[in-house]
Amino acid sequence: MTADGGPGDSRAEVLRRVREALGGSRAAPPPVPRRYARRLPDAQAGSRADVLALFTERVADNRAAVRHVSTDEVGTAVAAALWGREAKQIVVPADVPFGWLAELDGVRALADAPAVDTGTLAAVDAVVTGCAAAVAGTGTVVLDGGRAQGRRALTLVPGYHLCVVHADQIVGTVPEAVGRLDPFRPLTWISGPSATHGIEMVRVEGVHGPRHLEVLVVED
Amino acid sequence: MTADGGPGDSRAEVLRRVREALGGSRAAPPPVPRRYARRLPDAQAGSRADVLALFTERVADNRAAVRHVSTDEVGTAVAAALWGREAKQIVVPADVPFGWLAELDGVRALADAPAVDTGTLAAVDAVVTGCAAAVAGTGTVVLDGGRAQGRRALTLVPGYHLCVVHADQIVGTVPEAVGRLDPFRPLTWISGPSATHGIEMVRVEGVHGPRHLEVLVVED
Repeated sequence: MTADGGPGDSRAEVLRRVREALGGSRAAPPPVPRRYARRLPDAQAGSRADVLALFTERVADNRAAVRHVSTDEVGTAVAAALWGREAKQIVVPADVPFGWLAELDGVRALADAPAVDTGTLAAVDAVVTGCAAAVAGTGTVVLDGGRAQGRRALTLVPGYHLCVVHADQIVGTVPEAVGRLDPFRPLTWISGPSATHGIEMVRVEGVHGPRHLEVLVVED
Repeated sequence: MTADGGPGDSRAEVLRRVREALGGSRAAPPPVPRRYARRLPDAQAGSRADVLALFTERVADNRAAVRHVSTDEVGTAVAAALWGREAKQIVVPADVPFGWLAELDGVRALADAPAVDTGTLAAVDAVVTGCAAAVAGTGTVVLDGGRAQGRRALTLVPGYHLCVVHADQIVGTVPEAVGRLDPFRPLTWISGPSATHGIEMVRVEGVHGPRHLEVLVVED
């Protein structure tokens, strides 16, 4: 719109330089090396028990707590974890199985349907969710907003995240997890509590998400 | 074993007569007429709203209560229904969505994992479940032991059954429901409260199952 060296010209000039820097042809994407490990080495994945043990070890390495329970123990384990943190009020996706929360006593659970307002979300002590997949090699849980996982704000705002992982959701490597997930869903990859080294390279936890992560592995 | 007209001979004689009555060849099954209605007549199934309205009408005809709610109202509606029956203690399959029970206050919900003992089951005031499918033409809900439905005893023993039906689970006719169900699962077809006319042709409710049935239709 401007012909006198105003903002319009600056924008066109910047875009011209970007195009020039990108080169003439953009049809052929550059080659991407894909020689990363797609599976765990045999020594780590001899059996399912080995994979679960590796997951447990790596979750702990990530400074998250981790416990193994049977299906019948989930309700008791969730209650014990919340009591241990002295949680009085928690939020959960409305579709978490009732059994996960059946043993709560003195803890008020808010279902996120209708959506809990942000003030309440900031005030709750904890969130309990499931996951879509988990990675043994990196000690990661992955949420995709599907069943028992809820919207992203639920696992970003509260300071303590208790994540229930079924043993059959745990795979060895990130590529295996990617193979199970839908890339069109909003994926959240969680490896330990939220941490940043953004200021003076000092590790600070809980700035951009939960300060505490606890994982319950359910062995069916 | 006996050759003198004793019980052995009688049994052989009876079996001989049965075989004679069945005829020589049993290979070809008799023809079964299948001219029953596979779909609702157009007048009843002009739109989804028509099908839901028919379901509501037929459930009520079966002497069951029925209400329509939105997804966000399920928890409140479940609580209101239980308060209305003065239920103090209920049982639920462990995998019912937490949101269904999130608004309970003064009602203790027992998750059936580990399985509730039969004494407790007989003492609870109600059971809350989902269903596998529902039939508008007959006002029937069908349980198959899948998600949010639990084992059969749960919906046989307590005197009051509150069943949450998602609108997309409702089909027009029994053949349509059969087409959606797995014949190898234990199917329970429920058309109103349990009733019998077994003694003197007097209708008695609640002898072989819940005396009261209430259906919540969730329109997503």
